[in-house]
Amino acid sequence: MSSNSRAGRPRDQRTHAAILDAAEHLILETGYATTSVTAIAARAGVGKDAIYRRWSGKPELVYEALFTRVDLGPVPDEGTVEADVTALVEALIAEFSAPAAAIALPGLLADFAADPKLRAVLRDSFLAPVKSRMGEIFERARVRGEIGDDIAIDLVLDTIAGAIFFHLGILGEPVTADLATRLGAIITTGITR
Amino acid sequence: MSSNSRAGRPRDQRTHAAILDAAEHLILETGYATTSVTAIAARAGVGKDAIYRRWSGKPELVYEALFTRVDLGPVPDEGTVEADVTALVEALIAEFSAPAAAIALPGLLADFAADPKLRAVLRDSFLAPVKSRMGEIFERARVRGEIGDDIAIDLVLDTIAGAIFFHLGILGEPVTADLATRLGAIITTGITR
Repeated sequence: MSSNSRAGRPRDQRTHAAILDAAEHLILETGYATTSVTAIAARAGVGKDAIYRRWSGKPELVYEALFTRVDLGPVPDEGTVEADVTALVEALIAEFSAPAAAIALPGLLADFAADPKLRAVLRDSFLAPVKSRMGEIFERARVRGEIGDDIAIDLVLDTIAGAIFFHLGILGEPVTADLATRLGAIITTGITR
Repeated sequence: MSSNSRAGRPRDQRTHAAILDAAEHLILETGYATTSVTAIAARAGVGKDAIYRRWSGKPELVYEALFTRVDLGPVPDEGTVEADVTALVEALIAEFSAPAAAIALPGLLADFAADPKLRAVLRDSFLAPVKSRMGEIFERARVRGEIGDDIAIDLVLDTIAGAIFFHLGILGEPVTADLATRLGAIITTGITR
């Protein structure tokens, strides 16, 4: 490895972070649809080629800027599946309702859904971190005998993520204090007595 | 009423239907994002003013074309809340996975969510028919003692609609034979034993 490439890495990381920050600021100021790669490049003080070297386009860049830089903390382990699912829902609510994320999410997911290549990576990018956390929670619940071993984890994940995305992102409902508790209860014990 | 306005009405209805049909065909052929009011007007053989007299723009027009012309049939009444919710989920799956609807839904909902005026009518337009059906189902379940009288109907509705929209519309998962049964079970009895 040449000293040149070693010296270059920190500057490269600064450029990378500056592009992500520029995207986040533009979305907060003007919305997702009107934020273009050209505008992000200008705001970050780089050429468009510096962006297309790193990302396939705006959706992947915005996904990285808004949904990969948050520390999720340890996996909830509160002794019951209902408490753990509620804690997971709470973390997702916080992530989806962060100002730039709330603005970008509907248009960003529509862009991912409309492109077959991007759609194919949705489960591995957007959903992978929460699926992995949910897997740990469900394994502990299975060992405790709270749930069976036939849980369709992808469908439960889509139900939780879909409920939060639809409620907050599409409908724009406010985040009430009991939202996570109510959603956690629907998922774990359902609506019947 | 003049004979002139009487004679004009059927032609007006034909124009209205031709515009809705043109929108549906263009979405099937080219997708939602690239379907413009200009293209819909040209395809229907009308001026753009004929469209803007009837709708505020593309989102409201596409919503009417794809989501108001389906006959929902009678409200499910199969004796248990789980069977009724499953039937409701089945009808929503059919509606959301119809070819043009599946193509348009992510972009259409993103357009509704991004415009404060449109977002404000989402619950009264998109969700009103299914909420009314769910209200009947829950009232019968309450009388049978299956559910309490403290069910947050809007949140249950958002959970069901969000789960189906996210699973099919965003992730593009296939409609499996047991999807409605599994989702109906998650909502009514939850994932715990």
